[in-house]
Amino acid sequence: MDRLRQQLAFLLEVDRQKEIIRQTYLADGSRKETDAEHAWHLAMMCMILGEYANDTIDVAKTVMMVLTHDLVEIDAGDTYAYDTKGNETKRARELQAAERIYGLLPEDQGAYLRALWEEFEAMETPEAKFANALDKIQPVLLTDRAEGKSWREHQVHKDQIMGRNARTHEGSERLWEYIKEIIEKNVEAGFIRGEDQAE
Amino acid sequence: MDRLRQQLAFLLEVDRQKEIIRQTYLADGSRKETDAEHAWHLAMMCMILGEYANDTIDVAKTVMMVLTHDLVEIDAGDTYAYDTKGNETKRARELQAAERIYGLLPEDQGAYLRALWEEFEAMETPEAKFANALDKIQPVLLTDRAEGKSWREHQVHKDQIMGRNARTHEGSERLWEYIKEIIEKNVEAGFIRGEDQAE
Repeated sequence: MDRLRQQLAFLLEVDRQKEIIRQTYLADGSRKETDAEHAWHLAMMCMILGEYANDTIDVAKTVMMVLTHDLVEIDAGDTYAYDTKGNETKRARELQAAERIYGLLPEDQGAYLRALWEEFEAMETPEAKFANALDKIQPVLLTDRAEGKSWREHQVHKDQIMGRNARTHEGSERLWEYIKEIIEKNVEAGFIRGEDQAE
Repeated sequence: MDRLRQQLAFLLEVDRQKEIIRQTYLADGSRKETDAEHAWHLAMMCMILGEYANDTIDVAKTVMMVLTHDLVEIDAGDTYAYDTKGNETKRARELQAAERIYGLLPEDQGAYLRALWEEFEAMETPEAKFANALDKIQPVLLTDRAEGKSWREHQVHKDQIMGRNARTHEGSERLWEYIKEIIEKNVEAGFIRGEDQAE
């Protein structure tokens, strides 16, 4: 009974992933997506695009990895990709969050999910490389569809997007080729600032 | 290339799951959840509560089933559990939606996801029984936490909830025992109308 109570406490706590707002707009530009929606979308991408991973991946494991990869943001908040200051303290804030949130679960399950998150963060296994690639690709696909809305709002430079995606090719060369074309198209459209444009 | 384009068209189309609003409020009662958030939450429940399924289930398959079980609502809309009229036409509307939405994918993947949805709907396999149980249990857990908000708004009767959950025990006797207690507690609190209360 205690085990079930712990599990349900965790499952109600993670409901707060629905309250964390990311900087990425929905494809139709109507509002920004939540962490829960983002995680769901990555899981869908993983099911459909898993065949493009550079190395054969365990799709089911990768789905579970992306479903839970942002749970620490319940305490640590979402750090926008291009927020330099926020990204300096991100790791420390997320480690503390991991202690508390995974600590709500029975020990075996907390350890399993925590290990899955650490694997995602370490970006060494084929699954983690592909999950990280999807995590970087998804906002590009959505923002492209939303006519560059969040890029324009934050005056994002191509350098920043390329830097953010420096390791995307490790997850999928094939998808990265496609994403590079999308980025280029948006530079040409003026939605992403090009290399020759000063601040 | 055509294959990738079909897959991305599908993945951008399903973004609309984030725009379909259910009748269930978040645990904190602040707003109603979206279909994408609901599907994500069911997947989390599946990962954590899979051990309570009556029969041993393939958790990964069940996760994928719940992630995609509401895709047809992109065209068919969300039909509130206690909307009698809407539920009469639900199946026909959803079949038409399935044709179009799964039809966006390459044939092999469309057939796979469509079969997973049909399996969910038929509620015959252990995975489908458990997925359906979670789909009925999740709103009870959230609405209990939100002090009965959507039950009070719709003046829901205990009979309706029990009817809606008539087959929940087929997925998990253990979870159903727990949910029955929660329902009873909310009848006592006056958040769910009891059997002796006239309309």
